[in-house]
Amino acid sequence: MSNIDLLQARPPGKTRRIVLGGVKIGAGAPVSIQSMTKTDTHDHAATLKQIRQLASAGCDIVRLAVPDRKAIQPLRIIVSQSPIPVVADIHFYHRLALGAIDAGAHGIRINPGNISDEKHLSELAEAAGAAKIPIRVGANSGSLPKKMQQKVARAKNRHKALADALVQSALEQCAMLEEFGLSAIKVSIKSPDVPVMVAACRKFSSVSDYPLHLGVTEAGTLTRGTVKSAVGIGALLLDGIGDTIRVSLTADPVEEVRAAILILEATGLRTPQPEVVSCPTCGRTEFDLMKTALRIENLVDNLKQKGEIIPIRKIAVMGCVVNGPGEAKDAEIGIAGVKGGKAAIFSHGESQGTFPIDEAIAILMKKIVEKSTKKTPR
Amino acid sequence: MSNIDLLQARPPGKTRRIVLGGVKIGAGAPVSIQSMTKTDTHDHAATLKQIRQLASAGCDIVRLAVPDRKAIQPLRIIVSQSPIPVVADIHFYHRLALGAIDAGAHGIRINPGNISDEKHLSELAEAAGAAKIPIRVGANSGSLPKKMQQKVARAKNRHKALADALVQSALEQCAMLEEFGLSAIKVSIKSPDVPVMVAACRKFSSVSDYPLHLGVTEAGTLTRGTVKSAVGIGALLLDGIGDTIRVSLTADPVEEVRAAILILEATGLRTPQPEVVSCPTCGRTEFDLMKTALRIENLVDNLKQKGEIIPIRKIAVMGCVVNGPGEAKDAEIGIAGVKGGKAAIFSHGESQGTFPIDEAIAILMKKIVEKSTKKTPR
Repeated sequence: MSNIDLLQARPPGKTRRIVLGGVKIGAGAPVSIQSMTKTDTHDHAATLKQIRQLASAGCDIVRLAVPDRKAIQPLRIIVSQSPIPVVADIHFYHRLALGAIDAGAHGIRINPGNISDEKHLSELAEAAGAAKIPIRVGANSGSLPKKMQQKVARAKNRHKALADALVQSALEQCAMLEEFGLSAIKVSIKSPDVPVMVAACRKFSSVSDYPLHLGVTEAGTLTRGTVKSAVGIGALLLDGIGDTIRVSLTADPVEEVRAAILILEATGLRTPQPEVVSCPTCGRTEFDLMKTALRIENLVDNLKQKGEIIPIRKIAVMGCVVNGPGEAKDAEIGIAGVKGGKAAIFSHGESQGTFPIDEAIAILMKKIVEKSTKKTPR
Repeated sequence: MSNIDLLQARPPGKTRRIVLGGVKIGAGAPVSIQSMTKTDTHDHAATLKQIRQLASAGCDIVRLAVPDRKAIQPLRIIVSQSPIPVVADIHFYHRLALGAIDAGAHGIRINPGNISDEKHLSELAEAAGAAKIPIRVGANSGSLPKKMQQKVARAKNRHKALADALVQSALEQCAMLEEFGLSAIKVSIKSPDVPVMVAACRKFSSVSDYPLHLGVTEAGTLTRGTVKSAVGIGALLLDGIGDTIRVSLTADPVEEVRAAILILEATGLRTPQPEVVSCPTCGRTEFDLMKTALRIENLVDNLKQKGEIIPIRKIAVMGCVVNGPGEAKDAEIGIAGVKGGKAAIFSHGESQGTFPIDEAIAILMKKIVEKSTKKTPR
């Protein structure tokens, strides 16, 4: 077994390129968003419906469980009709992975803890190589190989031992797949424990150039899961680590995609079009900022859902003059409360004058609508 | 002007200790949660009502705007009745800060961009020193001193220049306050741009030992603002940077406190009691995990609201056997779906048997209720 502490360090963020069903991953490609269907894969119609919802929401790659042989035929239908690449999630049975490759899956996800037989891995690497599809090696603190689990349980610093074991488990399976001729590999190292996941991914990224798929497992319900994922995935992305991400939520998978988009926007990896920034309001605020910010966000969402393009980078809704104009200047369009029930409109750093608040909001909304244009249909 | 690039580096997380109305900040004290009232400070009753709501939700320190002289008298009443320390947020007028100190505020927040007169700062430092209260120097990208704004605007790398200017602006004001004899200082460096805020706080923490108050300004509406704050605050906390935090949301401030608690839990700085972990569900899931996880979370919340203590660290609700038992073993109580409409109950790593799903959920809930005990009233 290799000692990961002895492997040579490399700068983070420099990963090799793989391609999954046309989506580029790694080596500076835009960070892609993944999700996983929560339908029964045997029900191809329901699964395809959910995949289309995910694609509309902004999902780039979708994964689905292939729990048994009966799922292979529906998988074939799903792959042929899906608007985005499909990854088959396989556990325990390498024959299912071979079946999924035959059914046209654009990628396979296996787990070092439960497909470890060398002969099976060799067959899998050969089939994936022939089909020119990548394999994701997904190490997970919930299903580490038994020996490693025991080692972690005996360790003094369980957190560090767990992070190290996850990295080692992933590296070992990658090395085996490489030995069998497959180099189109991506790796995920997941844990429900955010500091463990972040430490493990940092370590992995410092010793390997496989593209990293980031995620926090068993993150929890909508709000808690979103926060855990934002912290873990966000911290790594800010450091240039991570090539594709999945937010795991015990919620509608469309929420996973929405949260993933917000994380990419927060880390500066995607620019919201347009971004509505608003201050948190305080005792200085002289108008209902919350309601105004929500009205502006809703207007933007409605225009986008109608297929409009809004060529504005930033809209600011500020409660008062303390930070207001400073921030609003940075925005193409901004509104900032001033004394006496009035608000100032800013555009490209210049005041457009002060108006009664309702009028100012109306002017702001009119400007947004005027700037919007219909998308040219492809 | 000092060149921050030349200051001596120090390891992160080693800050000096200050005390704010009895709450310890810095030097390894638990990371405290702050929020800000959104009521009109002139209305002391409404403001006190909101402060009590914030305190119940878990807020440790509350800030409120003191926009004018008329706010000093209500501030006096608020301070005398507030269950948690009160910080007065002052802009432009140092006389308001002196008034707030006289009214008993437990801390003052000023902004280097708008109180920079040395004589005013000297009076303020003297008054704060005499009252033994700390001052927060709050640098904000929306209200940098004009000269710095111009320098940033001219810079090639605007992001780096902005982060550097924020650090420099904060350090300069701290140096002045120190010169006037005040050392009980904490610093916040905020921006609506998460990478700028993280870079600036990392830089500040590498050159200074003032405790850091973390936050992302103008973060936005509930979901977007929570994600931005989780990424920015979370990334820094994971690296041991940050002594007190505020999540800024264009929403009810109680939501700010809830999000802050979730960030502290995600970064491992607070342990939820108990934590309900659940997997994201997939095509393998054989029962309604979402509903079950929510039922368990609701049960836990209800028991806690009734003043019950639940001496369980982790409850796992897992969809299937792939990661399920592995995670559930780590939990004091766990449930994991198995084939044929059944679920296994785990307790301290040992199976308690397999039951029809509804029965298993009922057993799990009964076990949680049985373990709970009434809090002894103080």
